[in-house]
Formats: sequence, structure tokens, C-alpha cells
Amino acid sequence: MDVRYINPFLTGAVEVLGTMASVALKPQKPYLKQHEASTGDISGIIGVTGSGAMGSISVTFTFDLIQVVMKNMLGDDVSGLDDEVKDAVGELTNQISGAARRHLAQEGLSLQAGIPTVVAGKNHTIKHIVTGPVLVIPFEGPQGKMIVEVSLVMIKTK
Amino acid sequence: MDVRYINPFLTGAVEVLGTMASVALKPQKPYLKQHEASTGDISGIIGVTGSGAMGSISVTFTFDLIQVVMKNMLGDDVSGLDDEVKDAVGELTNQISGAARRHLAQEGLSLQAGIPTVVAGKNHTIKHIVTGPVLVIPFEGPQGKMIVEVSLVMIKTK
Repeated sequence: MDVRYINPFLTGAVEVLGTMASVALKPQKPYLKQHEASTGDISGIIGVTGSGAMGSISVTFTFDLIQVVMKNMLGDDVSGLDDEVKDAVGELTNQISGAARRHLAQEGLSLQAGIPTVVAGKNHTIKHIVTGPVLVIPFEGPQGKMIVEVSLVMIKTK
Repeated sequence: MDVRYINPFLTGAVEVLGTMASVALKPQKPYLKQHEASTGDISGIIGVTGSGAMGSISVTFTFDLIQVVMKNMLGDDVSGLDDEVKDAVGELTNQISGAARRHLAQEGLSLQAGIPTVVAGKNHTIKHIVTGPVLVIPFEGPQGKMIVEVSLVMIKTK
């Protein structure tokens, strides 16, 4: 994956969590996924398509981090992964995808996003079914973690 | 959701599991999702887009059903949700989406599919973040269950 496509996601995620939830994320070193599975408790997944590429993006939170996010966004003390939390994760996934796509457009890659799907379940894992590399960007929150995974397949045009 | 769009998914799922895994699924009565969460142990999720609609499709298996599927497809005795199972679920999701889209095309709705993402985790739930209805089609297998969920937002064109 082109290194110019890493920063849009890293920057987009930090911007969105900072703006929407007043949560300062510390990005860790991005890497290409091998066989290890990233785990978390609630994830938003969104497909992207464009003339130059297609792929999927996932945003996975640990429960302790989403508790802080919900508290800051809505003032709610969250005790479980209810509908309100799922909707918030869907919206954050939409926003992160949107921010990243705006930055990607500046690099000449224009993508449209689909409708997010949210998965809730303790310690679930996510696998993007793709022949190319999957980029993993881990973030440390004030407590807990967030992981953004990006799989983009470039479509060759003549 | 237009009732003409239900059968393509129902028929597509039965065809694919029959052809690829020699598993005879019995479709149960489809319904529109309210607040209840469908749960399962491994799911494939795929986005679809087209000029007339966009949305997402999920295919969720219980562990006991995916064990039968893997045994029939590959002769494997599966003890956990490893990479091979995830790849198989990704491929089944692709195939079910493809079969359904061929049937939908005959109803005048042309859709392209994205890249599937597979989620593994005991008793996870899935929520499609969409303002419209979500169609749920449950299937009974020889043991265990499969659930297909479809969220399609029609795009109005003049």
C-alpha cells in the first residue's frame, strides 16, 4: 500500500475522536497485518469504492475506550454495548472514513463510502478478505485502545 | 423493502450452501428487524452499491453449522474459528452476494459488491447503521443456524 495513503487515516481518526469526543488518541506505529488478529469489543466496518480503488475500513474499540468516548460525547455512563453505543460507533466510523477520504482526495484518490455495519462482541476479531496488504494503525486512548484497519485494492486503469 | 428483493437473497443463500457445501438449508419466515439482535459466532459482511440502491449484507453462522459446512466443503474437522474458516465464510458471503445480485438483476436492480470482511467472536451481534428497514432471513441447517441480513437504501433518481 502506498505510504501516502497511511496518513489520511491516521490523521482522520485523531481529528474525529478529538472533535466529536474530546478524546486525544496517540497513534502508534502502523504496520502491515500478517496473521495476527486484532481484537476488540465493538467495531464499525465500512466499504469504500472508487474508480481507482476499492476496499474496506474497520474501526475497533476496546470497551474501556468506548466508555470514555460515550461519556464525553453524550454524558452517558455506559454499562454495556447497547443500541446507543452501536449508533455512536457507526457514526464515528462514518466520520473517520469521511475525514480520511477528504485527505485521500488531496493525494488524488477519490473514494465513496457505503453504509457502516457495527459488530459487538467481547474480543471479536476482524479479517478483511483481500489478496493485498491490510494496514493496521493502532491508537492508545486515555484508557483502552482503538485500531483502524484499512484494506485497499488498487484498480489498474490504462 | 420491496418484496421482490427478498427472494433473490433467500434463493441465493440456499443455492450457494447447497452447491458449495452440500448443506440443505431450510428458509424460515423472513421479517423486518426491530430492536432484537441476531447473534452468531462468525459473520461475513459485504457492501453493495449501484445506481439504484446501496447497502450492506451480512451472513452469520453459528459455530455448529460452520463445522458442518467446513466438513462438507474441505473435509476438515474444525475445532475453532481459524483463518481457513474465516476465508471460507468470506467466500460463501461473496458467492451468496453474487447469486442474490444475479437474481436482483432480473428484477431490474443492478448492484456491485465490495470486498467481504469476516468477524469472528462467540455470540457477536451485528447492526446495520441505516435509516431504512433491515430484512432478516433465518435458515435452519442440519445443525445450527444461518442468518442473512440485508439493508438496502433505494436511491431515488428522477
